[in-house]
Amino acid sequence: MKTLRVDLGGRSYDIQIERGCLRAAGARLKGVCPKAQKLFVVTDTNVGPLYYNALKASLEAAGFNLRVHVIPAGEASKSPSQLSTLWEDMMDFSLTRTDAVIALGGGVVGDLAGFAAATILRGVDFIQIPTTLLAQVDSSVGGKVAVDLDHGKNLAGAFWQPKLVLMDPDTLDTLDDKTFADGMAEVIKYGCIADAAFFDHLTAHPSRLAITSDIESVLYICCDIKRIVVEEDELDTEHRMLLNFGHTIGHAYELAGHYETWTHGQAVAAGMVMAAKLGVSLGVTPVDVPARVVALCAAFGLPTAIPCDIQTYTAAICRDKKGAGADISVILLEELGRAVVHKLPKVQLVRLLNSFHQVL
Amino acid sequence: MKTLRVDLGGRSYDIQIERGCLRAAGARLKGVCPKAQKLFVVTDTNVGPLYYNALKASLEAAGFNLRVHVIPAGEASKSPSQLSTLWEDMMDFSLTRTDAVIALGGGVVGDLAGFAAATILRGVDFIQIPTTLLAQVDSSVGGKVAVDLDHGKNLAGAFWQPKLVLMDPDTLDTLDDKTFADGMAEVIKYGCIADAAFFDHLTAHPSRLAITSDIESVLYICCDIKRIVVEEDELDTEHRMLLNFGHTIGHAYELAGHYETWTHGQAVAAGMVMAAKLGVSLGVTPVDVPARVVALCAAFGLPTAIPCDIQTYTAAICRDKKGAGADISVILLEELGRAVVHKLPKVQLVRLLNSFHQVL
Repeated sequence: MKTLRVDLGGRSYDIQIERGCLRAAGARLKGVCPKAQKLFVVTDTNVGPLYYNALKASLEAAGFNLRVHVIPAGEASKSPSQLSTLWEDMMDFSLTRTDAVIALGGGVVGDLAGFAAATILRGVDFIQIPTTLLAQVDSSVGGKVAVDLDHGKNLAGAFWQPKLVLMDPDTLDTLDDKTFADGMAEVIKYGCIADAAFFDHLTAHPSRLAITSDIESVLYICCDIKRIVVEEDELDTEHRMLLNFGHTIGHAYELAGHYETWTHGQAVAAGMVMAAKLGVSLGVTPVDVPARVVALCAAFGLPTAIPCDIQTYTAAICRDKKGAGADISVILLEELGRAVVHKLPKVQLVRLLNSFHQVL
Repeated sequence: MKTLRVDLGGRSYDIQIERGCLRAAGARLKGVCPKAQKLFVVTDTNVGPLYYNALKASLEAAGFNLRVHVIPAGEASKSPSQLSTLWEDMMDFSLTRTDAVIALGGGVVGDLAGFAAATILRGVDFIQIPTTLLAQVDSSVGGKVAVDLDHGKNLAGAFWQPKLVLMDPDTLDTLDDKTFADGMAEVIKYGCIADAAFFDHLTAHPSRLAITSDIESVLYICCDIKRIVVEEDELDTEHRMLLNFGHTIGHAYELAGHYETWTHGQAVAAGMVMAAKLGVSLGVTPVDVPARVVALCAAFGLPTAIPCDIQTYTAAICRDKKGAGADISVILLEELGRAVVHKLPKVQLVRLLNSFHQVL
């Protein structure tokens, strides 16, 4: 087992990475929630049928009283109405302040269940059991929980750290290639922003099979980078912005495809490529970087360019949570493995992004 | 002006108590939210017509860009659906992380607007401008924000401290006597749990007119008691329970009247009387205390006994947020001015409460 400790004072917690650890969940939870009697498990219609029974057996063997709430798979479940359905079901189960909520699934399940845990009875303990690559390397670590609004994604939420993140790499085996690649976009991102050697390692292992052969190390390296950033800036006021590399532009691509054509990872991949080109254009990023990012993304079947018009760029940039006023901060690469925050006027950013589409 | 500083480290804030301070809101807000450009004001159909124009004039004179959102007056607005309506309207106004939300009104407005502020964009600055006695002495201080669920009141929420509490006693002049008395129940509570001299002062000034003549001192004393308790136990894990004197039992009375027959303050008044009797019965409270609490509550037109059956007591006690397991903690008076937490089995509490109704 590989274990990472996220050090946030009274909100510290472990990330445990181990094949098969889903089946040890009962004992692990006894350790972190000694007072809990009831556990409210949130999962979805994809993940529940695959993994809930194994989890249930382990938790019941440890003496917990369970209720499972299965939401429809897909981003549409990350809604205010689904949130209040969860709240009512938690109270119907007579959950108390010393009990806990478990998220078993990908990012949608984790974000929704986490926000419900953060707010029911003004906050109860929360356990993440992420089952997708995207959730394991990104959304399950760091405490950001949210629902989507009509006005955009993740607009209502909280910072609510889990008590434990239990990561079983075996759950990745049931992902289709597209969903695996979706997570690889975030894996590649960590190489880009913080670890050139890791970027090289990925480049030398350019397939799902090659990555999977040592998946625990990949998960560990990604979570360790995120851990350091989260420890420095838990509430996302400054340094944590570096994790947004490829994301501000990626959000425009998600919007361009009405959140249907492109997955989050696909949009981030094309967003990273565009951010690399933007960095070259602004004299921040070395000229060979875009091609290297393109090559690595392409190796995992991720798109490296997505059509987007100037109106969509403008709309996405104006709704960015980090964009107060006329300027916006984007993340650029000073070199592969080192990211910086770069502030520029929103109108300049939109004009530059649009110009790349003219050239292409 | 009387000012109290609530000392909570990075979440510290001032409570400013001053006649007419509503008209100075613009300058005060400039001081606590220097980066804010937009202010989202939540008020209700009772308070908006009375006080919003004065607030608006002051805020606009200070250069803020405003949007006002008026909710229907009454507890029914403290709902998940009203919360998501607020969220969408905040984003429609393009609120950013450096902007702020203002609650202008009583407890419903404060709790709802505060929860929306705590969660929109994962949290923005929040200003309380309480306009009822209940909100001024209780709900606007301490950072508890929430909405009601079908399963009960305040079941989903957060701890989200305001950046400033601006208390204008002049706004109390427009309250009807019943609403004023509603707040007096909480005022009396502070005397009971923490300040025997204040209890005596209230007993010597047993009318709205007498209290109003020195209302700033009354507000100051109540908020100072609450400040001390909140500073010791911001997240309501232990000491803050003392503020619940009369409330666990009061919740049963609210439930008995389907949240319509009895206001919160009325239920708390009868709850305090019952808790005093309970304390006598358990040998914790001196025998003369119940009569003194009865006399003071009655002086302000508050009920001192409310019909309630054993099923309703049981239902209310089982849904209490502080009641994990078979035991429950109730607050009793060791003497007037000193409260203690007393743990006993839920079944014993219900049996005792019911027995008092047989005797009456």
